[in-house]
Amino acid sequence: MREVFQQELQEVQERLVEISTLVTSAITNATTAFNESNVALAEIVIAEDHKIDALAASLDELATNILALQQPVARDLRIVVSALRISASLERMGDLAEHIAQLARYRYPDKVVKKSLRTTFAEMGRLDIAMAEKLTQLLTTEDLRLVDEIRNDDDALDELHVSVFDAVLGETWKGNAVDTVDVTLASRYHERFGDHAVSIAKKVQYLATGEWAPVGQQ
Amino acid sequence: MREVFQQELQEVQERLVEISTLVTSAITNATTAFNESNVALAEIVIAEDHKIDALAASLDELATNILALQQPVARDLRIVVSALRISASLERMGDLAEHIAQLARYRYPDKVVKKSLRTTFAEMGRLDIAMAEKLTQLLTTEDLRLVDEIRNDDDALDELHVSVFDAVLGETWKGNAVDTVDVTLASRYHERFGDHAVSIAKKVQYLATGEWAPVGQQ
Repeated sequence: MREVFQQELQEVQERLVEISTLVTSAITNATTAFNESNVALAEIVIAEDHKIDALAASLDELATNILALQQPVARDLRIVVSALRISASLERMGDLAEHIAQLARYRYPDKVVKKSLRTTFAEMGRLDIAMAEKLTQLLTTEDLRLVDEIRNDDDALDELHVSVFDAVLGETWKGNAVDTVDVTLASRYHERFGDHAVSIAKKVQYLATGEWAPVGQQ
Repeated sequence: MREVFQQELQEVQERLVEISTLVTSAITNATTAFNESNVALAEIVIAEDHKIDALAASLDELATNILALQQPVARDLRIVVSALRISASLERMGDLAEHIAQLARYRYPDKVVKKSLRTTFAEMGRLDIAMAEKLTQLLTTEDLRLVDEIRNDDDALDELHVSVFDAVLGETWKGNAVDTVDVTLASRYHERFGDHAVSIAKKVQYLATGEWAPVGQQ
């Protein structure tokens, strides 16, 4: 029985890595679609989000079945409960990548962002991709040095998010209302993507150290 | 043992109702603060969000302890797992109410929204409050008629959300970039608040009927 349980826990971990890999691919494609006005790539992100949703739902079923059949306690229980939360965050990160792709599709053949902010958004995309990659690595290896790296990436992302608003609300902003709406939403999507990555990283850290990151301080 | 367990399940339910009540109060005050530029009320919402966070964290601890000590199965297990998810959504709804209050505080003594859109935002706020109230009632009574009402409210909310973008992107929009950013964010916060309410309502429905709403289709 014990051996079956360890196999099941390993399957939970592998499935989280699988979903995180798909999320990384989604944000990578969404970022390219967004920066380069690549509508074909945007369509792929949008069409494939259901795969992330289905894998997250299936992982939730697995985790719930493990709770019912194996009745884990202590650290094993925390792993299964955390897996439920991590899958919810990964599913949401997939949605946010999809939203970024939708902005690219909507504005095609134009680019979503005016020239003055393109470097900023390219950097936000680069940080989101880096965080997603590190998350996959963290879920695979539990190398906790990655947690601090993810936090640092998120701090940089938050600074860029603030700088977008400074630019849009400054006197030199030449964008029309469409530009302003799109930039506001895109920046928000990137920022939330990063928040979820940090939230997951903290859960992995907690599993390794026993220190829980309280809800709302994530 | 069984009796203790039923008491614990009841406590989970009571705590969800308690958090939902605080969320209702937060969105009610945030909406008034936003519509009437009431900075004192905005400050209250912002200052009190930590209470929602703390109650959600404490409920998560209780639910995890129930899983460990009572090892529930079948419907009881689903209730506890669902409670974890519902508390996460309620916590997020509290954050969104806080974000709306922050917009009001930031723009004080001005109003956040230009005259042309004030009726729309008043209606969005009214719908969010109604959904939060119905959610509290649903969590208390499990009266499933409320689920459809909450869905209908959310459909109306989504229409208003679309109409905000139509207005901002139309030719008669006279707002500057600050107006456009604030209206975009506020509308998004209201819409996400409604999404979480529907997501919770579906989980309660599932507990009553056994029909699960898959992740990503919420």
